[in-house]
Amino acid sequence: MSRILLLGAGRSASSLIHYLLRHAATEGWQLTVADVNPAHLAPVLAAHTEYARAVAFDIQQETQLVELVQQADIVISMLPALFHLPVAQACVQHKRHLVTASYVSEEIRGLDAAATESDILILMECGLDPGLDHMSAMRALADIRNRGGVLTAFRSYCGGLLAPDSEGDNPWKYKFTWNPRNVVLAGQSTAKYLENGHLRFIPYQQLFARTTPISVAGYGDFDGYANRDSLSYRAPYGLETIPTMLRGTLRRAGYCAAWQAFVRLGLTDDSVRLSNPADMTWAALVESFLPAATGDASLAARTAEYLGLEPEGMEMQRLAWLDIFTARPVELADATPAQLLERLLTEKWQLGADDHDMIVMQHTLDYELAGVPHRWESSLVVLGDDATHTAMAKTVGLPVAMAVRRLAAGLVAQRGVVIPTEANLYEPILDELAADYGIRFAEHETSLAAVVAL
Amino acid sequence: MSRILLLGAGRSASSLIHYLLRHAATEGWQLTVADVNPAHLAPVLAAHTEYARAVAFDIQQETQLVELVQQADIVISMLPALFHLPVAQACVQHKRHLVTASYVSEEIRGLDAAATESDILILMECGLDPGLDHMSAMRALADIRNRGGVLTAFRSYCGGLLAPDSEGDNPWKYKFTWNPRNVVLAGQSTAKYLENGHLRFIPYQQLFARTTPISVAGYGDFDGYANRDSLSYRAPYGLETIPTMLRGTLRRAGYCAAWQAFVRLGLTDDSVRLSNPADMTWAALVESFLPAATGDASLAARTAEYLGLEPEGMEMQRLAWLDIFTARPVELADATPAQLLERLLTEKWQLGADDHDMIVMQHTLDYELAGVPHRWESSLVVLGDDATHTAMAKTVGLPVAMAVRRLAAGLVAQRGVVIPTEANLYEPILDELAADYGIRFAEHETSLAAVVAL
Repeated sequence: MSRILLLGAGRSASSLIHYLLRHAATEGWQLTVADVNPAHLAPVLAAHTEYARAVAFDIQQETQLVELVQQADIVISMLPALFHLPVAQACVQHKRHLVTASYVSEEIRGLDAAATESDILILMECGLDPGLDHMSAMRALADIRNRGGVLTAFRSYCGGLLAPDSEGDNPWKYKFTWNPRNVVLAGQSTAKYLENGHLRFIPYQQLFARTTPISVAGYGDFDGYANRDSLSYRAPYGLETIPTMLRGTLRRAGYCAAWQAFVRLGLTDDSVRLSNPADMTWAALVESFLPAATGDASLAARTAEYLGLEPEGMEMQRLAWLDIFTARPVELADATPAQLLERLLTEKWQLGADDHDMIVMQHTLDYELAGVPHRWESSLVVLGDDATHTAMAKTVGLPVAMAVRRLAAGLVAQRGVVIPTEANLYEPILDELAADYGIRFAEHETSLAAVVAL
Repeated sequence: MSRILLLGAGRSASSLIHYLLRHAATEGWQLTVADVNPAHLAPVLAAHTEYARAVAFDIQQETQLVELVQQADIVISMLPALFHLPVAQACVQHKRHLVTASYVSEEIRGLDAAATESDILILMECGLDPGLDHMSAMRALADIRNRGGVLTAFRSYCGGLLAPDSEGDNPWKYKFTWNPRNVVLAGQSTAKYLENGHLRFIPYQQLFARTTPISVAGYGDFDGYANRDSLSYRAPYGLETIPTMLRGTLRRAGYCAAWQAFVRLGLTDDSVRLSNPADMTWAALVESFLPAATGDASLAARTAEYLGLEPEGMEMQRLAWLDIFTARPVELADATPAQLLERLLTEKWQLGADDHDMIVMQHTLDYELAGVPHRWESSLVVLGDDATHTAMAKTVGLPVAMAVRRLAAGLVAQRGVVIPTEANLYEPILDELAADYGIRFAEHETSLAAVVAL
């Protein structure tokens, strides 16, 4: 019998919980779901009370955290990333395994030796991005290497988007299936990547203007913008000497050019509070970021001129659709621009009950085989079932759950702080996702000899 | 007898030390100058050993700080601003007065009640900017109010610049007389000010593009850019309801447009380390911030095109003068862009032994008198004597020193955390600066009735 503790049962944990409940009886698990607000779990767990319980949990209560960890064999943390460190420390101290879908922080990395010493696994980056991206990339890289191919370029993009049937009249073709604050603050550092052996940097103020068009067969066109640090995965992927390496994020085509208007206006800044009243209108807020008016042009027309945008173009249509030129109140006093924008978007980009979300991931791997350049493209599209079992919840939660199942069964020998870049971790998960959930990559390989000859 | 302790004897303390030594004997002071590197003080203090001594001092040594503070009656801190808090705490605990030229931080403001309780004065913002700006503005405001004038606009600019005879062939007409890091990181937040009753915000990425031309009679043209928060001085100045309030920084005309090129390239970002080698060239660094080359245009030409600048224009001449398109090495490995830029500028913008610096301050106060709009302009220009007694050192250090002299003589009754906005503080200092140092504002008042009639 394994005792499994899940910390945090928010939006992205639905498919994870569903998977754990589905397998709990046959695998002999005792499941504890700890959440700050456990009431919503009652109907979910109602048919499973023999082996599943919900408890109220507050991460600030250190004694409760230690108690819960001590009562478990494997801990899953779906808490916001900043709370992983105390959980990981408790796991090391009490010798319990930990699995999360979040990036390895410097502090977590620092626990590697202690975790190995405690004979436990801290499996990080085991969700979607990071997670499935590593797994699918490593499988493709292994296949190419086994055939003697030499990698020359690695480009990988992922985005949490809307299914085409739910894009409706929203010209951004975007709603939140993930932390809104992270979306508003996305990219606020200089992005680093490699291109033909040259370091490339894109500062925040240019990031959404310097995008790459990405097409996915059957699903149309997207914008890709560079992630903060594409260089850090060269070593984990075994690509230390690759000349081109880029990881990025996808949005629907046109989103980035319109978002760049927010960046240039200054509405994504989170460093200064504006001394504004809560009943300030969005029109007054936008006005305050423009130079003083000299004629009688409309606010929208002046904004377009200031930003060098077509007054009737798609960027301005996207801005206007968000009501930012209207008397709508900003609703928060003395807030940062980013807080005001998040407040607005949380309403305008709210996922409806009938909406379906969509995950898109695409890897493009260039390599040489016997001197001939080749390209491997693999693409994944996952559609959400509904507003609960979103594509985001499935692709973040299921890899975590599958890793936990194998760990509980004694099939994972790794110890210390690990990400899923080894075949014994990723192969069974990719196989199970494909076989049981239809989550599989479409792969396409071409010789580029003809193209290069051009 | 008063015992005066000066903490920090760096570049900006020269005129302050000179003043203290000049008055020590007649005022009966015992002076202790504490610096991390006291060796350079020996020749300065040689003729004054009866009443002045230098000691080695490390702010990290808490016991030494407490010892020194206990042995003093008045403490002057010219340390970097982040070190003021422990000094202020020691002063409160041991009931010693403190004078600095730095901004009141939230933490220092929090000591107000405790300082009052200890019957001590913590006099902050008593240098140039902040300092002389408050004093001269308050004198002008008091004069206008005494005549029944009602303020409608307050605009104030200050800059630490080069004297015209030292601008030479440097197309930036700028060298460092102050902390280089602060100059490189200047303005990295959204600026806030008031214009005709409307809040105005300028985000960093637009700050150096949205400047105001400022002229000073006899000294030519300058660019003014808005300081971070012009709103916070409404209350201290008694201007709670003024419709227009702006405080800003001056650079020589043309500097800001060229600096904006660095902002747009991304070279002022301090949030990311670039994984670069120390022998990376400046040309390679600039290249890495550009999109990949598609033709054979020169790096400078591609930079000009990317930024929308005239290839032979003044902005590009300023950039080229800094060697950023050459094989000059960046000299720091894995540094932030801002660190690399600071390293380069510290050499290119180093004040020479024969250079003279220049301080320019200008207030423009609009007001109504019996319904008629008026404008009061007051301008201050101070030239440095040499590379030691710079205009910066004089205007930062002398107001501090003069305040200390009056405090030691029992002429300052204020207690708690105070800035020099009251007449009993600023009047004698402004008078002494004018009488003994020729540091005086040129004032000019006009009725704007004719202009308004246009």
